[in-house]
Amino acid sequence: MPPSVLSGPSRGLALAAAWRVLPDAATGHDGDHELVGDTTERRSMTAPTARSTAERVRDTLARLEQDVDAWVATAHPGDGTPYLVPLSFLWDGRTLLFSTPTASPTARNLADTGQARVALGTTRDVVMLEGTVVATDGVDEELGTAFAARTGFDPRELTTAYTWFRVTPRRVQAWREENELRGRELMRDGQWLGE
Amino acid sequence: MPPSVLSGPSRGLALAAAWRVLPDAATGHDGDHELVGDTTERRSMTAPTARSTAERVRDTLARLEQDVDAWVATAHPGDGTPYLVPLSFLWDGRTLLFSTPTASPTARNLADTGQARVALGTTRDVVMLEGTVVATDGVDEELGTAFAARTGFDPRELTTAYTWFRVTPRRVQAWREENELRGRELMRDGQWLGE
Repeated sequence: MPPSVLSGPSRGLALAAAWRVLPDAATGHDGDHELVGDTTERRSMTAPTARSTAERVRDTLARLEQDVDAWVATAHPGDGTPYLVPLSFLWDGRTLLFSTPTASPTARNLADTGQARVALGTTRDVVMLEGTVVATDGVDEELGTAFAARTGFDPRELTTAYTWFRVTPRRVQAWREENELRGRELMRDGQWLGE
Repeated sequence: MPPSVLSGPSRGLALAAAWRVLPDAATGHDGDHELVGDTTERRSMTAPTARSTAERVRDTLARLEQDVDAWVATAHPGDGTPYLVPLSFLWDGRTLLFSTPTASPTARNLADTGQARVALGTTRDVVMLEGTVVATDGVDEELGTAFAARTGFDPRELTTAYTWFRVTPRRVQAWREENELRGRELMRDGQWLGE
């Protein structure tokens, strides 16, 4: 590793970060305090001010409306085998729409468990969603066309069997660096906070 | 969504991409063919040439050696509840070393299942690792210091209980866009391919 990682302002900043997450860690809150450490991608040595709830909701909605890809984590219902894959999605204002081959691990896991954990963004600009999953046999013409336009592929044109899934977030969190771990909760029980 | 997404070279490219993944999807290979679609982050409208296995191994090792963060997916052993969180890591040439609060969902899942799926990079420059997980009570002085230097936090200094985990990849894949889905396998049964 480069010597520059071993010292300098960013290291002090990051160490402070690790200390700051202790209260949550000590109470065993939910594990998102696991986010720690410095980043090679950090552009500035000064920590940006933590965003307000309203700012984070706005940024999160912008990601939902503009991002194309998400990391989708699912699991086998019986043995705890995790699965993770990037998938493209379309946000309709309330749910994320995915389409994935019916034979894929993600489709099988979603059908079996009805559970997904979905991340948008990067490890230093995270939007994390937990939600309920519903499979749909098909989508109406307009929605299918919107999905194809957004994601760049149209499952309706493919001969392989694809399954559509709607993920309705029930809990949403967003954080960038350590100083945003506090206040990361943006939606609880399906309700946006601060509205 | 911007009209530019609806047309233009990138859309044609992405549609071609969706078609190209059909063979794998049809054989139910492993679901990584789920990656489809265009990206707002694409810098160029021309698809880069697919990297060779040797190039991907080199790029993957560079990520392992230089990246700080990974997406770590785990699951509850009993009910298929997936968990996903960004965690910092240190690569020692053979394993990824993580440290996370003992009370966190990730630590509990890892201890219970011994299974993790780890992604490095972005949804359009993916390194995906499956591996075996071993918990370690502690690490030697040199390794702990290297971990702290790399990740910016030192679990040895914290009062909260942290558990160290080593993830030894058994299978590694890397791909960027659709034209790299073929040949994405870089390690099988713990052996790098092309060596």
